[in-house]
Amino acid sequence: MSVNTKLYEGKAKIIYRTDNPEVFLADFKDDATAFNAQKRGSIQGKGIINCTISSKLFQQLAAHGIPNHFIDSPAPHQMLVKAVKIVPLEVVVRNIAAGSLCQQTGLPLGQILSKPLVEFYYKNDQLGDPLLTRDRLLLLELATEEQVDRITHLALQINDFLKTFWQECGITLVDFKLEFGVDSQQQLLLADEISPDTCRLWDNSETDPNRRVMDKDRFRRDLGNIENAYQEVLQRVLTVVEKN
Amino acid sequence: MSVNTKLYEGKAKIIYRTDNPEVFLADFKDDATAFNAQKRGSIQGKGIINCTISSKLFQQLAAHGIPNHFIDSPAPHQMLVKAVKIVPLEVVVRNIAAGSLCQQTGLPLGQILSKPLVEFYYKNDQLGDPLLTRDRLLLLELATEEQVDRITHLALQINDFLKTFWQECGITLVDFKLEFGVDSQQQLLLADEISPDTCRLWDNSETDPNRRVMDKDRFRRDLGNIENAYQEVLQRVLTVVEKN
Ligand SMILES: Nc1ncnc2c1ncn2[C@@H]1O[C@H](COP(=O)(O)OP(=O)(O)O)[C@@H](O)[C@H]1O
Ligand SMILES: Nc1ncnc2c1ncn2[C@@H]1O[C@H](COP(=O)(O)OP(=O)(O)O)[C@@H](O)[C@H]1O
Ligand SMILES: [Mg+2]
Ligand SMILES: [Mg+2]
Repeated sequence: MSVNTKLYEGKAKIIYRTDNPEVFLADFKDDATAFNAQKRGSIQGKGIINCTISSKLFQQLAAHGIPNHFIDSPAPHQMLVKAVKIVPLEVVVRNIAAGSLCQQTGLPLGQILSKPLVEFYYKNDQLGDPLLTRDRLLLLELATEEQVDRITHLALQINDFLKTFWQECGITLVDFKLEFGVDSQQQLLLADEISPDTCRLWDNSETDPNRRVMDKDRFRRDLGNIENAYQEVLQRVLTVVEKN
Repeated sequence: MSVNTKLYEGKAKIIYRTDNPEVFLADFKDDATAFNAQKRGSIQGKGIINCTISSKLFQQLAAHGIPNHFIDSPAPHQMLVKAVKIVPLEVVVRNIAAGSLCQQTGLPLGQILSKPLVEFYYKNDQLGDPLLTRDRLLLLELATEEQVDRITHLALQINDFLKTFWQECGITLVDFKLEFGVDSQQQLLLADEISPDTCRLWDNSETDPNRRVMDKDRFRRDLGNIENAYQEVLQRVLTVVEKN
């Protein structure tokens, strides 16, 4: 499989075409951005860590019947994926109140939600990824009603799997962001990545609200020790994957 | 009916208790605010104009079977209303894209929506009246599912009535904000006001996007001639009400 033109470069990955039009190569970068790219930096080793964690999780999710774009990982920072047309939605699943949910609703950080919240944001950097109601999403024709229902169902299934998985790692899954896409056969697939960049992960062995943070919030909120936290997450993932 | 203590003073009205605990007196002020009270000013005659327009519309809505808080208007700037516990939601009905809908979704100003959009915002000045999804609204327990469904149904009925009414005035109803409350008998009632402060109203005889504006957007956007526009809306409302 030879890799040719760069298709697009995002904030965390570069997507390349391959000689197979149904396959893309995702190259994970160490670049880190936050607050709609107003804050920029780099987390050493992040590309390899996020690619490895994502690859392991996608393989486990596939084994649990969740269709996703993962094909192979030809290098530690590279993932071969099924080419999809990304549905322009950031699908966020929340188990515990954090981030913009707290800011926008006044719910206290850390409040356990009575049931998981599946939320849709418009994947649009220019507009700042605004929260969407179901009606707005349909009005903008970002997805069909059928797709919204299917994505909601898959997102809750993925949440069930991931909550258990991270729990085995000694980590509480606070919330996470998913992206979905449609492949050449019109199949809806889970795509993009699942990593400490896209999940809020709290270490069960820490009670201090800053020390427990093992995800990109360490970068967003300048909590330090970012590389260590990402490394520690990787180690725990690898240990649990081996055990299973 | 003697009026006693001031219950609370809002941005546009003062609510007084009366000697009947089930009745409040709303005193409409000339004060104008926008952008969550960051912009402040005054529109001469607004108190009387908004109270008169609201009173007429509430009477017509009651005649059309929409339960609301209007009892009487003892003075041109005063309205006796049924005392309710306000549901902390700003219920917005949109027929045409404008305002925050355009800013947040990128829809062009003036785009006619394929069907009316009923939206809920958290009535909370501290949080800046954020948009709510149905799930967030229920999670925050701002209303019950039953109330949300009933409010949505009433809001669409009110929209049907108001679209026709304003059309008879030679005015296009772009969008509007409603508030609902629950009275001592647990009845859900339309409350607050319906006026050029709470509706976007475009003059059908003007095509210029600034000249057509007959509502608080003249204040928000410094378009001038605010008093004239409010007076003109009042005159047209009175003419249509007399005719009916
Ligand atoms: N299987 C796939 N096919 C096509 N595009 C994908 C696939 N998986 C992820 N993408 C897209 O790759 C782009 C690059 O990823 P990333 O750097 O995270 O971008 P962003 O800056 O939008 O977050 C994103 O637009 C993402 O939606
Ligand atoms: N029938 C009613 N009973 C009790 N409160 C009401 C009633 N109608 C309106 N209100 C409330 O009166 C308050 C004053 O109105 P206003 O000046 O418009 O306030 P705001 O600054 O919140 O917009 C608002 O909180 C509104 O919800
Ligand atoms: Mg991304
Ligand atoms: Mg008000």
